[in-house]
Amino acid sequence: MNVTVNGRTRQYRTVSFSARHNRVVLIEQRLLPHRFKLVETADFRETARAIHDMVVRGAGAIGATAAYGLAQGARAFKGRNLDAFEKHLDRVFETLKKARPTAVDPVNAMLQVRAKIAAGATVEQRQQLACEAAEAFAREDIEHCREIGRHGAPLIRDRMKVLTHCNAGWLAFVDIGTATAPLYAAQAEGKRFHVFCDETRPRCQGGTLTAWELAQQGIAHDVIADNAAGHLMQRGEIQMVIVGSDRTLGRTGEVANKIGTYTKAVLASRHSIPFYVAIPFSTIDWKLKSGADIPIEEREESEVLGAWGVDARGSRHFVRIANPGSSARNPGFDVTPADLITGIITPAGIFQPHELWENRHHLGFSDR
Amino acid sequence: MNVTVNGRTRQYRTVSFSARHNRVVLIEQRLLPHRFKLVETADFRETARAIHDMVVRGAGAIGATAAYGLAQGARAFKGRNLDAFEKHLDRVFETLKKARPTAVDPVNAMLQVRAKIAAGATVEQRQQLACEAAEAFAREDIEHCREIGRHGAPLIRDRMKVLTHCNAGWLAFVDIGTATAPLYAAQAEGKRFHVFCDETRPRCQGGTLTAWELAQQGIAHDVIADNAAGHLMQRGEIQMVIVGSDRTLGRTGEVANKIGTYTKAVLASRHSIPFYVAIPFSTIDWKLKSGADIPIEEREESEVLGAWGVDARGSRHFVRIANPGSSARNPGFDVTPADLITGIITPAGIFQPHELWENRHHLGFSDR
Repeated sequence: MNVTVNGRTRQYRTVSFSARHNRVVLIEQRLLPHRFKLVETADFRETARAIHDMVVRGAGAIGATAAYGLAQGARAFKGRNLDAFEKHLDRVFETLKKARPTAVDPVNAMLQVRAKIAAGATVEQRQQLACEAAEAFAREDIEHCREIGRHGAPLIRDRMKVLTHCNAGWLAFVDIGTATAPLYAAQAEGKRFHVFCDETRPRCQGGTLTAWELAQQGIAHDVIADNAAGHLMQRGEIQMVIVGSDRTLGRTGEVANKIGTYTKAVLASRHSIPFYVAIPFSTIDWKLKSGADIPIEEREESEVLGAWGVDARGSRHFVRIANPGSSARNPGFDVTPADLITGIITPAGIFQPHELWENRHHLGFSDR
Repeated sequence: MNVTVNGRTRQYRTVSFSARHNRVVLIEQRLLPHRFKLVETADFRETARAIHDMVVRGAGAIGATAAYGLAQGARAFKGRNLDAFEKHLDRVFETLKKARPTAVDPVNAMLQVRAKIAAGATVEQRQQLACEAAEAFAREDIEHCREIGRHGAPLIRDRMKVLTHCNAGWLAFVDIGTATAPLYAAQAEGKRFHVFCDETRPRCQGGTLTAWELAQQGIAHDVIADNAAGHLMQRGEIQMVIVGSDRTLGRTGEVANKIGTYTKAVLASRHSIPFYVAIPFSTIDWKLKSGADIPIEEREESEVLGAWGVDARGSRHFVRIANPGSSARNPGFDVTPADLITGIITPAGIFQPHELWENRHHLGFSDR
């Protein structure tokens, strides 16, 4: 998507691969929204570190980064011995997997790459195939986001005001994003609309990343406190809500997403405002039978007790906001029940939550 | 209430009067929760400045501060000429009124003091009466909060988990507070319970002031992001919500309070969790016929785009959090409809919202 630096606008992907220099190129997301910078990783270990240190974050983006990291590792191998090559690749795989041990996307992405490598008869062929498979993975991520945009764009009417929560934008994927895809597609069709970005405490991904994305893309928007959406709905200022999802249950249509999503769904339901969730196939969980069984990560207290920001001199640091003697609870996600969700926008079309299961064979159903 | 400084616990009021030195004594609330400090104003102009600069904030607290400020001004008058004294008092009144031009409490408090002064035949008598009337105003504020506690305490069951939003604690009144009064009273009865303090973005009064109050009082609590309450309710971790109010409509039972209150009421209703509002008589508006007519103050964007906090070296400053190119909407209050409110806790007892009007003559009904 567009990024304007020093008055010059260029197109960027969140993650890409420089085959010539065997480097993975990433947007340094920890500096956003205050500074835009690209980093290039010199080898697969640096790529793993970038995933671990959250230079790159978001399901699709870390999947593609791991896929590229695996190809990068494969191409660094010297020699012609296939056994030695595969052993080397095992090490690369494990290193990249360990970078975010609880995330499923890097593992799935790398398995996809490895499955395609097997067809090569020589080390050189397998190195070439690794590169192509990683590129194909990233292209598919982009293509799926584009499809979400194609299906979702008709929901955005001219002059509509749309609420979004957290960041399920292009920074979380290779490009385009999921919750943002219908917005970008509607913009391309010439529609004018306004977006309210929930700040999304405690980590503020809405006020930082989503607001940055929309600003770069020239989409009119306001950041709001998470407390303000209910009032804006009450006064008729929001006509639609669109969010992403970390995990959607294929059997029930329940949606796990950033803490606060459930609250927005409850508010939207009270005001009869359509509530949409945009998801790639990879976040559908076909196994779990109840949202109550989704483990909710309890994150560090410090995230709630303070915030990261930039001071008057432009230097970034953490400030303690809350009373120093007080503790915090910090659940990272919540679960929105199916009855509060108007539609789930997938690359294969828009489904009502209860329709996911009957359409599972169009939605990348897998038993894993 | 209790404040512990350097290991020593003492009782403080938010505002008090040193008759001997003719000084108003205030807790410097802008330094909380990071530092506890008392300030004494040397004359009524300094008292007005303290109100203006928000050294003291909260309906009851600024009312009492203005009442004391008027007495302080009255006592500073030299001479025996009653006309000159009254002219002087007009100037004191205007100075204190202008300190927070939109607030009704200082004006009402000062009118109450002036009404009692008139009985004095000499300047000296009137000075004495001013002092007594201001003290009576502060005592009544405390007494009303105590009554709210007495009526509300039976609602708090042992081991309950209670959610509160923003700060309607003793710092907002002379002592005790409104939303906190039932908590403090229940604690005095030996009940054990846990409080979740909504952070209350953008100004974070819940995470700073309410959390500080509860910590000083030794009440178990956690600060939570405003996004987290819905999830905690869903998982059965909240059994009651109690908040204060900036304005309650006597005719409809609608409640205007800090932005985000409405959201919590909607969530509580969905989960059949009782939602209580604790109010002193002074915040009941007997005139307005609809909550939709309550003007909602749109505050500075910067409050949403950043936050005040303390850095690692202990110095307090503002950090920008949100994307620098983005604007913000910042409605300061919202309106909760009567059907979401279980009960309104007043000094005269607990009423359902629609019962306020029929009981108006017990609830300080006035035509103003």
